[in-house]
Amino acid sequence: MDFVCPSLSVNEQGNLSLGGADVPALARRYGTPVYLVDEDAVRKACRDYVDTMQEAYRGEYLICYASKALSFKTIYDLMRSERMGADVVSGGELYTALAGGMPADRIYFHGNNKQDEELRYALKSGVRRFVVDNREELYHLDAMAAEMGSTAEISFRIKPGVDAHTHEFIQTGKIDSKFGLALETGEAFDVIAEAAALPNIAVKGVHCHIGSQIFDAEPFQVTVRIMMELIKRVHVELGLLIVELNLGGGFGIRYIPSHDPRSVPDIVRATAQAVTQAAEALALPLPYLVLEPGRSIVGPAGITVYTVGSVKAIPGVRTYVSVDGGMTDNPRYALYGAAYEAVLPERPLAERTECVTIAGRCCESGDLVARDIDLPACEAGDLLAILATGAYNYSMASNYNRVPRPPVVLVSGETSRLAVRRETYEDLISCDL
Amino acid sequence: MDFVCPSLSVNEQGNLSLGGADVPALARRYGTPVYLVDEDAVRKACRDYVDTMQEAYRGEYLICYASKALSFKTIYDLMRSERMGADVVSGGELYTALAGGMPADRIYFHGNNKQDEELRYALKSGVRRFVVDNREELYHLDAMAAEMGSTAEISFRIKPGVDAHTHEFIQTGKIDSKFGLALETGEAFDVIAEAAALPNIAVKGVHCHIGSQIFDAEPFQVTVRIMMELIKRVHVELGLLIVELNLGGGFGIRYIPSHDPRSVPDIVRATAQAVTQAAEALALPLPYLVLEPGRSIVGPAGITVYTVGSVKAIPGVRTYVSVDGGMTDNPRYALYGAAYEAVLPERPLAERTECVTIAGRCCESGDLVARDIDLPACEAGDLLAILATGAYNYSMASNYNRVPRPPVVLVSGETSRLAVRRETYEDLISCDL
Repeated sequence: MDFVCPSLSVNEQGNLSLGGADVPALARRYGTPVYLVDEDAVRKACRDYVDTMQEAYRGEYLICYASKALSFKTIYDLMRSERMGADVVSGGELYTALAGGMPADRIYFHGNNKQDEELRYALKSGVRRFVVDNREELYHLDAMAAEMGSTAEISFRIKPGVDAHTHEFIQTGKIDSKFGLALETGEAFDVIAEAAALPNIAVKGVHCHIGSQIFDAEPFQVTVRIMMELIKRVHVELGLLIVELNLGGGFGIRYIPSHDPRSVPDIVRATAQAVTQAAEALALPLPYLVLEPGRSIVGPAGITVYTVGSVKAIPGVRTYVSVDGGMTDNPRYALYGAAYEAVLPERPLAERTECVTIAGRCCESGDLVARDIDLPACEAGDLLAILATGAYNYSMASNYNRVPRPPVVLVSGETSRLAVRRETYEDLISCDL
Repeated sequence: MDFVCPSLSVNEQGNLSLGGADVPALARRYGTPVYLVDEDAVRKACRDYVDTMQEAYRGEYLICYASKALSFKTIYDLMRSERMGADVVSGGELYTALAGGMPADRIYFHGNNKQDEELRYALKSGVRRFVVDNREELYHLDAMAAEMGSTAEISFRIKPGVDAHTHEFIQTGKIDSKFGLALETGEAFDVIAEAAALPNIAVKGVHCHIGSQIFDAEPFQVTVRIMMELIKRVHVELGLLIVELNLGGGFGIRYIPSHDPRSVPDIVRATAQAVTQAAEALALPLPYLVLEPGRSIVGPAGITVYTVGSVKAIPGVRTYVSVDGGMTDNPRYALYGAAYEAVLPERPLAERTECVTIAGRCCESGDLVARDIDLPACEAGDLLAILATGAYNYSMASNYNRVPRPPVVLVSGETSRLAVRRETYEDLISCDL
């Protein structure tokens, strides 16, 4: 059986196994719903990036984990130990990263609307890089760095105009975006020129992020050329050498069998090569190269295990299988109509004779997890796993309907440990006065 | 100036006022983003329902606040004091309702997939009514009530086939829904007949919920007739008298000026009249009548106040105004493309010369709050209020990007008090191990 998550297999008991652990046994131990993440798969995904860069790129580099995909304390320690950095997009992520042991000098601070207290907090913490999104932020940061007697080392978020299209709502980089400075209008160049003159700002890099769920190397190769030409122009016209190129993330994963992304090593190798070639062609030194994968690091390593509540067959219409979670732990169908695969962990190989819609438990019609997918017949009490939920599930979870958020369990071989405990009812009212 | 929220006006200082309180002053006191809720407007909305029922309906009745719209401890105390009950859709909401002082005998327990431990908890708590969604739940509940030596008084969620259409994703009641028992297939009648024979179940009522954002009385009137005919058929064929009719919620509100719902008293009066007429026509006693408004109670009473971060004008494309919140505190644009009005609290009457898109601070292109709306020119540091956010904003909020959830402030006249405090960074990692 070929599951979309490489961590999954069928064990001797005929049950679904994640890494080396029996999924039904994990569900019994931790309860449902539960997020299970194969730690070994996460580590392997990190190494796919780091080892390929080490082998394919002669310049310096850093792979930053885009922690908005899945953020909790332990994940940062895991990333640190895999020679990764982290990108954070809020004071809350920065706080979690530092609490999790990520060294500040490996942290990139992103965001289109960083708050003043966040900039101050990041300056104090000594983050490696501020990825400045806009002119207002640049001047705020300069003023704050002056106040604190320090210099902020920055990169600029650029809209290179490359449009790596997958879904309108998860697409960035094009000119109609709330993020970054537009290249084609001259805005990007102008703001870099202004920054070069600011006393407490050191312009180190340029950054871009061209989209999400990108399956090929080509969009990255095209982007490299555009960004390196910007670096060249800044060098020639401003005499400023930008030493860092950050290409962001967007590396796609397989949610359903028809998704067929090129392998991470392939894409990284092609991208590193494009940078090397552009540097040679433009007579520039090899930049410090940064990539920021998130989904491709944790997404395929995770599954969510639910218990089936009711099965409602509406003749001639649709069969609804209700589970004990839903849009509160995985809002991606509600937000994007995202497609997922499901498996019954207690009989993963059973024939998929039914077409069903997986519904959540929220008091909302749109609370679905997957629509019209093939599944074996199932009934109340059965376990049901949704695959490839490691990214943008726990991190986007809510307490809608005051449903407690599920725990995150890290699995390694046959062992497992809680990384995030399940919320309690007491937690739900902890801010209520 | 006619704002979509009746609580809003312009005060002597020329600032936006909510109830009798100066909005910029509240923003300074509590920080931004902040949810402000006019408590007096909430109370008035409750009275619109209760007083109209008192006047227009000769039978017994209960107005249950659909607390999924906005759930925190204090709101239940407020509802209790306004002679309201509450509907809850999870153990977490039940826990909050009880902690907030709502008497259990005014609580209706809903949900398409109630968990066994939730059923047990609700039985122990003595909730007034289980609104049973499906056959599995019915049998679980009977077994549990037997175990505990009690009887569960239930209502059934029925799909009456009425389709009060506003938006596909917030529509229920039609036959293609995860909720309830279908009338037209005979399923509803069959399950009621089964329930009548169960020893620890007392069938008290039927319930339905025909949609959301309904602006007229007609869908309710049509539904009343269908539901009363079901009650009649059950009486004639099973000899069982169903004494309660619960018509759910769905009463629409004005989010933007073009929304023009009939007033609550009008709709309630017309609905009560329809029940009275149907009872007479079918020779049935007047049922205990239940309505479950949520959005129409709290929605128009609330606004969210943000601070503008950056204003990004992309020539010929679009102007993005970034605020210090977004889809984390209000995911309704991301989920439904919901429309909202915005006002600048420091100059509410300024001419709306710009067409702007309000963007959130999340690292996601789809993180918008409102798209292409008219607004006066604004700049970093300005306050910006989104109107009619009392419902389905705080309750749907997430910690995506590890952004702390804003506080909820209850305003009454010129006074204000925290109902939910702002989350801290420490809160964000409180479940992390």
